[in-house]
Amino acid sequence: MTVRPDDRADAGWKIDPGRFVRFSQVDDVFNRSWWDERVRSPETERFFESYRKPLVDWKKARGFRRKDYALRNAAWHGADIFAELKEAEDRREGFLDPLSVLRDASDEKLDMGDPTEAAEELKQVASTLGADLVGIAEADERWLYTERYSRQADGAKPNPMDPDLDRVIVVGQAMDSSLIATAPSALAGAATGLGYSQDVIVLLMISQYIRNLGYRAVPTLNDTALAIPYAIKAGLGEYGRHGLVITPEHGANVRFGKIFTDLPVAIDAPIRFGVEEMCGICRACSDACPSSAIPDGAPSDALHNVSNIEGVTKWSVDGEACFGYWAKINSDCSVCIRVCPYTRDMSRRRNRWWLRLSATRFRRLALWLDRRSGRSDRVSSNDWWPTAADGAVPVELRSRRTETTQGEVGHAGPFQ
Amino acid sequence: MTVRPDDRADAGWKIDPGRFVRFSQVDDVFNRSWWDERVRSPETERFFESYRKPLVDWKKARGFRRKDYALRNAAWHGADIFAELKEAEDRREGFLDPLSVLRDASDEKLDMGDPTEAAEELKQVASTLGADLVGIAEADERWLYTERYSRQADGAKPNPMDPDLDRVIVVGQAMDSSLIATAPSALAGAATGLGYSQDVIVLLMISQYIRNLGYRAVPTLNDTALAIPYAIKAGLGEYGRHGLVITPEHGANVRFGKIFTDLPVAIDAPIRFGVEEMCGICRACSDACPSSAIPDGAPSDALHNVSNIEGVTKWSVDGEACFGYWAKINSDCSVCIRVCPYTRDMSRRRNRWWLRLSATRFRRLALWLDRRSGRSDRVSSNDWWPTAADGAVPVELRSRRTETTQGEVGHAGPFQ
Repeated sequence: MTVRPDDRADAGWKIDPGRFVRFSQVDDVFNRSWWDERVRSPETERFFESYRKPLVDWKKARGFRRKDYALRNAAWHGADIFAELKEAEDRREGFLDPLSVLRDASDEKLDMGDPTEAAEELKQVASTLGADLVGIAEADERWLYTERYSRQADGAKPNPMDPDLDRVIVVGQAMDSSLIATAPSALAGAATGLGYSQDVIVLLMISQYIRNLGYRAVPTLNDTALAIPYAIKAGLGEYGRHGLVITPEHGANVRFGKIFTDLPVAIDAPIRFGVEEMCGICRACSDACPSSAIPDGAPSDALHNVSNIEGVTKWSVDGEACFGYWAKINSDCSVCIRVCPYTRDMSRRRNRWWLRLSATRFRRLALWLDRRSGRSDRVSSNDWWPTAADGAVPVELRSRRTETTQGEVGHAGPFQ
Repeated sequence: MTVRPDDRADAGWKIDPGRFVRFSQVDDVFNRSWWDERVRSPETERFFESYRKPLVDWKKARGFRRKDYALRNAAWHGADIFAELKEAEDRREGFLDPLSVLRDASDEKLDMGDPTEAAEELKQVASTLGADLVGIAEADERWLYTERYSRQADGAKPNPMDPDLDRVIVVGQAMDSSLIATAPSALAGAATGLGYSQDVIVLLMISQYIRNLGYRAVPTLNDTALAIPYAIKAGLGEYGRHGLVITPEHGANVRFGKIFTDLPVAIDAPIRFGVEEMCGICRACSDACPSSAIPDGAPSDALHNVSNIEGVTKWSVDGEACFGYWAKINSDCSVCIRVCPYTRDMSRRRNRWWLRLSATRFRRLALWLDRRSGRSDRVSSNDWWPTAADGAVPVELRSRRTETTQGEVGHAGPFQ
């Protein structure tokens, strides 16, 4: 694992080797909300507190009622368990430290054969264990955080990573688009939490598989290294204006995890499918962003504040503005994901057709069609819940059985 | 929650109130393999050991190689984490004791309104959090184990359950049918483990949601109570000859969990869709069972051994024979699930048509068609793995991207 500052263009980002500085997780805006008075406020404290205990009638507004928070925090619970399991050891696993709840396994390495075949095999295993997307990148020290943040010390601690772990398996979990459609809301925040919860358990199972073959595996979520450049290098998508990776399968509606390993597997190549060109003409996210945190101009190496990485020319989000809005509304936002034209159900033929069109010189037409369709309109949280004022049960639930059995399922007869 | 021994017919089982005796989990065949010399053997010890550490080249047979075990144990890892987390407190959560990793929540109960609407709402939440099937039953003390098994004490310990928790939410997770198709194999055992791992995390999140609303929730997997009668009472399926619940959506290819709660929700009614009549003429499972553990006659109240429940007339499996075979092959079996004619992908129109036919007087034709189709033939484990001898990559993997993007995804150009 070597630093390669001479790469002029990498991961969709242009790196200036003379100015590039690796990022410290201490400087991410979430950690700064603990130690940096420029970010910390009563609102940020209330924000974090709200994830630990559902507020009672915090707001009367749609999407911010108690049930919305109850679901959001329940969805986070799977990830929270692991984040809190080793707090006594100053570890916040999945967010500040790698996941570590793995069983010991054999030291004897299984011969994996051809690296390309081994990669295909690993991807099938990962999909079987619940990964929605899987790609493989070469480890790259540039994206490794220089330091972790320690809550106990309220400062930096080391972020060791063995350079022998030269492969990074990037796993993407699609988020629930019916929840994201209600953004901004506490209800939409359930999609975020659920993405993390699914990611954690899937990363742990894939890592245990690798260990069972005799190799090493360090599963990481938001901790340890930047996920975005790895997801791009692993061929899972292209970098978007909103600072998120846009995948062909789920647009930007994806959460990423990554596993550092010495399993001898072939790496994937980055992909291009017209995102850079589309983001160049589209302003859906920057126009809709409630905190004006997304740039509407060309990629730039200007820094908003210490939470941006130095020496990289790219679209860069103003994390202080973004997180400031989260603290104000008391939940994460996701408006940029909702309005992004790539956030659409690609299992539908119509949307696959749109994706093809978006990669051609008719991308302005694709954009016009997207705007005209109303796809990105915010759905009222009340419409998500099945028991709205009119007591209507949504179609999805009513048809839970009839879709597969169409009337053959009757109520019990003589035996009940 | 009261004992109702006067129910003559319940949960698809005929109960004899004069002879009915509640079951003790100490007597289940897995626990007996620890304390009962009639079940315990070097093979059963090796069986359990194999789940803790992948064996190296235990067998050369297809489906029992190291990769197969590596995947099986990785799939179990999600459930194993919770099973082992509180071993120091003599708890084996999810298998002998309820899951307990839940956050405290508000004591103030949210008014849930109409119980039918509250039930619909809960089901939508459960589906969103990852439940494949959800139903609600009334708590029934008959299905509560009289005792739990304590590994530390190598004997019984109490199994308390507050009778105020009068609702049981039953959650079903579909298992991976491509793995089950290779049964019997260690590879097929990955489907079992994965079902449990998904169930655990989903049960915990749903329970946390209920607690966030101010109510109580006790998530249970194989522990605390019998799952089969609850799944039937909750309307998720009918009882089958192989002793499993057959659902209209996934046949018997499902694992169940259950949450005891005081959330005021309406209960579901049991369903009938021709399973009892089909199992009456079908012998697919009893003919295929490698240990002849499944009865080929009519439902009966005869007991094979102490691992059967007393005073119930039903198809009863011989647990000693069944588990004896698992120990012999060093993995769980699942042949009865593979061969059951209801194990088919109901998202396909052809299979939904078959399900409709199976519930009519033409069920013999349905059975004949199933046998003739070769649907239940065992798939070689080598064909499951993408890198078989010929190095062929299965279609599923090759088309991972092209299905949605059909050629628009090229390799990176100038930026890479």
